[in-house]
Amino acid sequence: MDRSGMRSTVRDLQMYYNPELHGEVRLDTNTNVLGSNPAAAEFLRNFRGDVNGYPNTYSDGLRDALAELYGLERGNFVVGSGSDEMLDVSFKTFTEWGDGSVSPVPSYTLYEYFMKLNGGRCVGVDLDGEFQLDTDAMLAPGAKVMIMPSPNNPTGNCFRRKDIEEILSRTDGMVIVDEAYGEYAEGTMVDRVEEFDNLIVLRTFSKAYAMAGLRVGYAVASKRTAEMMNCVKIPYSVNMVSEGAAIAAVKDQEFIRRSKAMVDGQRPYLDAGLRRLGFETFPSDSNFILARSPIDHAELVAGLKAKGILIRDFGAKRRTENCVRTTVGTRELNDLLLSKIEEVLSGC
Amino acid sequence: MDRSGMRSTVRDLQMYYNPELHGEVRLDTNTNVLGSNPAAAEFLRNFRGDVNGYPNTYSDGLRDALAELYGLERGNFVVGSGSDEMLDVSFKTFTEWGDGSVSPVPSYTLYEYFMKLNGGRCVGVDLDGEFQLDTDAMLAPGAKVMIMPSPNNPTGNCFRRKDIEEILSRTDGMVIVDEAYGEYAEGTMVDRVEEFDNLIVLRTFSKAYAMAGLRVGYAVASKRTAEMMNCVKIPYSVNMVSEGAAIAAVKDQEFIRRSKAMVDGQRPYLDAGLRRLGFETFPSDSNFILARSPIDHAELVAGLKAKGILIRDFGAKRRTENCVRTTVGTRELNDLLLSKIEEVLSGC
Repeated sequence: MDRSGMRSTVRDLQMYYNPELHGEVRLDTNTNVLGSNPAAAEFLRNFRGDVNGYPNTYSDGLRDALAELYGLERGNFVVGSGSDEMLDVSFKTFTEWGDGSVSPVPSYTLYEYFMKLNGGRCVGVDLDGEFQLDTDAMLAPGAKVMIMPSPNNPTGNCFRRKDIEEILSRTDGMVIVDEAYGEYAEGTMVDRVEEFDNLIVLRTFSKAYAMAGLRVGYAVASKRTAEMMNCVKIPYSVNMVSEGAAIAAVKDQEFIRRSKAMVDGQRPYLDAGLRRLGFETFPSDSNFILARSPIDHAELVAGLKAKGILIRDFGAKRRTENCVRTTVGTRELNDLLLSKIEEVLSGC
Repeated sequence: MDRSGMRSTVRDLQMYYNPELHGEVRLDTNTNVLGSNPAAAEFLRNFRGDVNGYPNTYSDGLRDALAELYGLERGNFVVGSGSDEMLDVSFKTFTEWGDGSVSPVPSYTLYEYFMKLNGGRCVGVDLDGEFQLDTDAMLAPGAKVMIMPSPNNPTGNCFRRKDIEEILSRTDGMVIVDEAYGEYAEGTMVDRVEEFDNLIVLRTFSKAYAMAGLRVGYAVASKRTAEMMNCVKIPYSVNMVSEGAAIAAVKDQEFIRRSKAMVDGQRPYLDAGLRRLGFETFPSDSNFILARSPIDHAELVAGLKAKGILIRDFGAKRRTENCVRTTVGTRELNDLLLSKIEEVLSGC
């Protein structure tokens, strides 16, 4: 039994990022540095529910809470175990074997993984020099599915709304806008889902909502599109504890505002600090910054790891040559990061 | 945008069982009638962890606990959000588009769903008159994947070990033995995974472990096979609260023994009661009984629902004509069920 017995499109997959941890400060996964979502934590402390029975099949309670938040209806939502499950469901619902799906380069590495899982081909289309969408190039392959994160990961910037709208208007294919970091940005495509029934917006509780450990994400789409996806998603994939915590978190928008305000305040500070140390930084609308290192990327990342700080290395990839990505921290975390980088640069 | 835009194999899928509930007694999902897993409940009560960060990518903590339970290694396990995710991962890992996969008729309805999700075809092979495997018929299509629950759902009986071993020996394809109800039966195929590297055994925390609400399941396979599946499964699909609860539950085997003993004691009692009321019952090695109703199946199920009891209707399906499936309850629940059935039969 070797890998020749595997689905042909997944034979080259390797196990995913799973760092061995020894108490490092984690600025590598862009979670919320303010710590656990307080409303979710309170829900967990008080949870005394019966876990013997199945959760609601489609997380109706959470879908109702989201409908209220956005002024939409329950039927506009698909809820899953992280927005990663929503990616999988999108490809399962809308692609045939061998279909090419388009995503920008650089963007989120797991898109390619989900395309391959579903027997598809990945068509990468380069972003322009400012990491913005090249709409003609994105549309040229005539793909059944186009997927783009906005804010983009790892570059940090939002794509122009008019470019996304142009793509939506000029294709019959599905357009997935992954707003995993949407709470940190201005604007969203969520309010356009009934206008464009080829639009799927993905959101997650793993970033600004500070609940990555509970694995909840969702898709917003026209009721027609969402219903197709709900028929395809695995029934009751969200456990009842995470669903309850997410409902509590949705009702505490003050924490989200506070989290965004912290990032809005600290991002320029960290950016300036990195530039002072010789990094080339790229504009970000999110809670992380992509920066080109003045020394070898791998040396920098390993040096910081030895000093107890994890950041993410994108330096070996095309378009992000010698770049690293770091979460924007609190003032204290940013000062710590900058001082440790300074030590690495000076060879201490 | 209509269903013609969907993957061709999923266009006929409808939303899954999601009954509207009004406090009914649930004997329709074969969860553990003793109530929530006590060790899991204790873990939840005391949980004060930080949920801001991601869980371990492959649930290594739970894989270690399972390895200890079975005397195997971490690398023999794949953990997911319910064994349903493991079904999806199995087809994603080992089937190409259009591949036919074999499952017995009657068996678990979601197998067909997962085959279709993954672009496959379902090849149903009838069980014999005693609901046992017809090994030649199962092997005849030369399928890349064969899947069978043992104990079988909805019939309740285990398949003969020698039949499963014969199938394993005579095929190069993958053989998935779904032991969702394995804790209630004698024997398991788990201890054979290193001997047959085409064997995948599925287990769940949703039935005897009384944690359906937390969504945890796992696959056991040779290290080589499990590694392929881990490369394909969605990273950190199990949230950290459910993982912690499952680890606690694994260490409390006394609850599992107590649950099995309750079912062993009550199943003959319920079976005799059903036969006394005119049902034809089928032999079960699990915590549920399939029974052919003396009146119209739909009338029986609706009548019981009106009286506050849910059981599952299989009466419109081939091979289980006019049959219903009920969970084996405690003595009190069984008496309640039997008395309500008596009322329905007598037209009260």
